[in-house]
Amino acid sequence: MSLSEFSLIERYFTALEQPASPYVDFAIGDDCCLLSIPDDMQLAQSIDTLNANVHFPAEANADLIAQRALAVSISDLAAMGASPVAFSLAISMPQVSEPWLADFSRGLQQAAQHYAIALIGGDTTKGPLSLTVHVQGVVAKGKALQRHGAALGDCVFVTGSLGDAAAALAFMQGQLSVAKSAQQFFKQRYYQPSARIAVGQSLNDIATAAIDVSDGLVADLGHIAKRSGVAAVVNVDKLPLSAELQAASSPEQARRYALSGGDDYELCFTAPASMREQLLELSELIDVAITEVGTIVAGSGVRCVDGRGSELQLSQTGYQHF
Amino acid sequence: MSLSEFSLIERYFTALEQPASPYVDFAIGDDCCLLSIPDDMQLAQSIDTLNANVHFPAEANADLIAQRALAVSISDLAAMGASPVAFSLAISMPQVSEPWLADFSRGLQQAAQHYAIALIGGDTTKGPLSLTVHVQGVVAKGKALQRHGAALGDCVFVTGSLGDAAAALAFMQGQLSVAKSAQQFFKQRYYQPSARIAVGQSLNDIATAAIDVSDGLVADLGHIAKRSGVAAVVNVDKLPLSAELQAASSPEQARRYALSGGDDYELCFTAPASMREQLLELSELIDVAITEVGTIVAGSGVRCVDGRGSELQLSQTGYQHF
Repeated sequence: MSLSEFSLIERYFTALEQPASPYVDFAIGDDCCLLSIPDDMQLAQSIDTLNANVHFPAEANADLIAQRALAVSISDLAAMGASPVAFSLAISMPQVSEPWLADFSRGLQQAAQHYAIALIGGDTTKGPLSLTVHVQGVVAKGKALQRHGAALGDCVFVTGSLGDAAAALAFMQGQLSVAKSAQQFFKQRYYQPSARIAVGQSLNDIATAAIDVSDGLVADLGHIAKRSGVAAVVNVDKLPLSAELQAASSPEQARRYALSGGDDYELCFTAPASMREQLLELSELIDVAITEVGTIVAGSGVRCVDGRGSELQLSQTGYQHF
Repeated sequence: MSLSEFSLIERYFTALEQPASPYVDFAIGDDCCLLSIPDDMQLAQSIDTLNANVHFPAEANADLIAQRALAVSISDLAAMGASPVAFSLAISMPQVSEPWLADFSRGLQQAAQHYAIALIGGDTTKGPLSLTVHVQGVVAKGKALQRHGAALGDCVFVTGSLGDAAAALAFMQGQLSVAKSAQQFFKQRYYQPSARIAVGQSLNDIATAAIDVSDGLVADLGHIAKRSGVAAVVNVDKLPLSAELQAASSPEQARRYALSGGDDYELCFTAPASMREQLLELSELIDVAITEVGTIVAGSGVRCVDGRGSELQLSQTGYQHF
């Protein structure tokens, strides 16, 4: 017997234990949810779709799919310096599998609690497996980090390490061999990326521009450069590479993953050099690496140089969506 | 040559001519959009997915698909008595077809202007054709229409006519023959439903509960009854049926479409009998039929009776999502 949509929602979504939010007046169970936003705040929103076999393997564990979908969307809130408030989930499934839904629901709840974000609405439909997550968060009025403020002389910083998710994907597709001891690390970097909420929230008065690295550093830093009317130079010898990535691939391959691979969901931001010390303190305080990788200069586009100043040519500069 | 996601967004979505909104501070072009909501208002939100060959024929005109997707979501705002503000669109497409996108973009713009709603964000991905629309609107704080306020003795009202969309679907699937002169009417009722925004906005101090008819009158009125802890009785002889529907099907078939067919996106609401006169005036003022079809009584569930009081048995009471 198949469950009706209403029973499904009741059992696997409405029943989620999740954080209460002062901004959510009414969540699931009517034609709309209702929110109230204080006058001194702005609501930041983003929407992302993950399709089976395009953005994740269809046979992946449902709890990991749920965790990844939520983290990927929340990463956009981090990039704006916003604090997560609520999300809506539209899920299409070819058929109702209760074990799958139970796993999915568990992963969703775990991620929702981790990021303190409440499920406030959704839609469940029949169709090829696909998730669309709409997230929203609050930020003090006028304090959101955007892409357009990078200024000449600013330094370029990134959080965490880059290239792990691209290497993980190559590993899962059988194109890269990884030591047994590092396999869990890579899977986690792909399925459970750390949306850098705490960093983003701390950057409101420090960074001049910010973006999350979803399509690759060169591509995403390129958006900052374009919006800001400047160019960026990346010193590839400064790229933060995990020990696991360095062990699994050649220096050239690791660099390529870091520059052109997507899915890391680290933050890339610009700030005046005078902020270096504050960023060092911040990094220690919240225990997230923050690495200076380049500078903002006059011109357009993103150039990559090595420590001796030689320019590198990149054949592919970011994830191609079509 | 295939267009990149960014060029696509630029050409077919960012360039849309659309209404300005005082609540939208920043729309497309960063990690998030930004909204400000006045303290005396609530933000009402809903999300809906339409999948090809589940919710619309894949070969349908792209401009009609766009119009339908937007109207279906906006109908949820109407059911809350909210005024449309903004929407986000996540679209998955198997490949990039510029003629298709041009049509889609034209339909989207037409509907967005009709409902005075601004596109503020989205995602374009590769995958089976699917649209997810997240809509939001504003409503005076505490004035939203919900499902739970129906009281004993209230009358049940519906807007427009019922059953046309279900008949349209039957016609398009070759299961119902329709006179040539009425075919356009039925297609329009399916692809361009009228989200009843003006009615919803006028009901804030009149209706005790409201819902939009997406799954069929019996199913949707059933949600009001359940949430309100009451029962509803529908007099099937009072159902508003279009002349086109009455001409195309037998009285029994027309009644079945009206009671159990989905996709009409009319409003169903309850109000005290003392509001009858005000509703008549409203109906004339905004030129939308408002018909009294039943009453709220003690008990649970929805019963259907004819003019002589005989009870009808319904084999299927609403659209089954799985």
